[in-house]
Amino acid sequence: MVRDLVGDARPAGLVLGIGDDAALWRCTSRWEVATTDSLVQDVHFSLAYTTWRDLGWKALAVNLSDIAAMGAAPTYALVSLSLPGDIEVSSIAEFYAGMLDLAGQHGVTIVGGNFSAAPVVVISVMVLGSLEPEASATGIALQRSGAAVGDLIGVTGYLGLAAGGLRLLGGNTARTIEAEPLVGAHLRPTPRVNEGRVLRHKGVKAAIDVSDGLLLDLGRLCEASGVGAQLRASQIPVHPLLQAHFSNPLPLVLSGGEDYELLFTAPPLLMDEVRESLEVPVAVIGEVVAGKGIALLDEEGRYLDIVEKGWEHFKSHERIENDDPS
Amino acid sequence: MVRDLVGDARPAGLVLGIGDDAALWRCTSRWEVATTDSLVQDVHFSLAYTTWRDLGWKALAVNLSDIAAMGAAPTYALVSLSLPGDIEVSSIAEFYAGMLDLAGQHGVTIVGGNFSAAPVVVISVMVLGSLEPEASATGIALQRSGAAVGDLIGVTGYLGLAAGGLRLLGGNTARTIEAEPLVGAHLRPTPRVNEGRVLRHKGVKAAIDVSDGLLLDLGRLCEASGVGAQLRASQIPVHPLLQAHFSNPLPLVLSGGEDYELLFTAPPLLMDEVRESLEVPVAVIGEVVAGKGIALLDEEGRYLDIVEKGWEHFKSHERIENDDPS
Repeated sequence: MVRDLVGDARPAGLVLGIGDDAALWRCTSRWEVATTDSLVQDVHFSLAYTTWRDLGWKALAVNLSDIAAMGAAPTYALVSLSLPGDIEVSSIAEFYAGMLDLAGQHGVTIVGGNFSAAPVVVISVMVLGSLEPEASATGIALQRSGAAVGDLIGVTGYLGLAAGGLRLLGGNTARTIEAEPLVGAHLRPTPRVNEGRVLRHKGVKAAIDVSDGLLLDLGRLCEASGVGAQLRASQIPVHPLLQAHFSNPLPLVLSGGEDYELLFTAPPLLMDEVRESLEVPVAVIGEVVAGKGIALLDEEGRYLDIVEKGWEHFKSHERIENDDPS
Repeated sequence: MVRDLVGDARPAGLVLGIGDDAALWRCTSRWEVATTDSLVQDVHFSLAYTTWRDLGWKALAVNLSDIAAMGAAPTYALVSLSLPGDIEVSSIAEFYAGMLDLAGQHGVTIVGGNFSAAPVVVISVMVLGSLEPEASATGIALQRSGAAVGDLIGVTGYLGLAAGGLRLLGGNTARTIEAEPLVGAHLRPTPRVNEGRVLRHKGVKAAIDVSDGLLLDLGRLCEASGVGAQLRASQIPVHPLLQAHFSNPLPLVLSGGEDYELLFTAPPLLMDEVRESLEVPVAVIGEVVAGKGIALLDEEGRYLDIVEKGWEHFKSHERIENDDPS
């Protein structure tokens, strides 16, 4: 059935897609990457406000974001779908249509599908990607361990939008038509696939995608690299819609998950070059320092203690639990 | 955490395992295969009689079986584990220990792991494999579509053991120490990885693994190849333990799932060669014919009608639902 839903796209190199015991393709790249991530009903999403089409998009998006954080080009996806028996076939068709919306944008082919019965919806997706060796690349892939003292810390786009959207969907705050971009950030996140490839091509070495919030994911990058970080509170961009809808948007910005922006580090000159190359805005929000841990500084360089408070408050009361991908 | 559980095995070519946004390796083969399969609590297994160690083994085994059915060598595995909050860490350690028991036998490295919360245990595993081009190979991989009229139909080992074991575990039949091999066939199936590679190396073109029962999986192979099949009832081996424990073992043999034996077709001379090459017994149980559908014949070549009856009876009353992997 999945074969009918995903169509007959057959990129060069793919010999067998869905329908045999396994998919089969010819390797066209020297280096390959792979990741897997799951979405579980009522843990990561609610069918009360998520359409099946959005769900298909997001289940692929969260995986493409991991591929983006390596600087790789996604190639193939495999999907395990566990479903209660009362799900309509039309819902599954919508799910795959949403997945194909995004897959088509990035040249991804769905080559494997598996259905199981389950008491709730569980979607596990695996995505493969390839890295072409490039003369200009100084490393094989973007890695969490690539940050060096003196690097500046950059982040694409805005943070906290998805968490803001989730709060609006939860119904505790008035939801207006103006707030739809926040809701959209939660329901249909944009993986920064092309941006990740540009970063790698330019010579950036360290990146991670912001799936679990700025502080948590920056902490992972710093730990993997054996460094610390200083963030400048005034340089962390706050989207006007967050300002408009939340009296205290900073916890959303610092610790809201699921924005799937790219967080990366680079020496100052390279950071300038990267900012000029990318269409998406890149904010320079701090720098990599010796030591460990993350400090948040005000405009005069004084330490703010909002980091821990913001995080702890947000974590315990408002944040959907996210997974440690490692 | 998974990194601690799966250890630091680092085969040649693997650059990044668990711990970054994605795993990264160097492609060492021209052709690659990939498959995914899930196990869902109380659909595919019960924790009432399945240990976590067995579960880890089986979650990998069902995927390795698909790789085996392509004639490929498995390389890397990624695991998405969705778990209720009350599962003990020691159970997860046992799960990975069981998976590593089997992975180690076949040179498989676990390179990706993801945890989610969920109301029941859902395990999704994806396995990659490689196919080395070989001068003697007449095709790229074993495929369901490779059967030709005049081929003999072979199957490794015995069928129905896992289904028999599941019935014993279900408690409707007295379980003796002598019956342990049946129970073991259900809990810790043996994927025929090496056998699949030998088949492909010898020039066999068509294979499928018996995950959902002989009749169903032979039907899939025949449909993909555009052929029919005649089975000789007297040539289908029935294990003495099935004879001893079940008054009518034929439905188990014909339609019991989860044996993970390899079902394949080959011209008579090649079939002889394959049977001599494999250590595991191969039974020749019928032949590929023009047309469509599967007929079951007695020793004098008369049609038996047990096929449909056996299947229907077994399907509706005793068989755990299995998934259509396509």
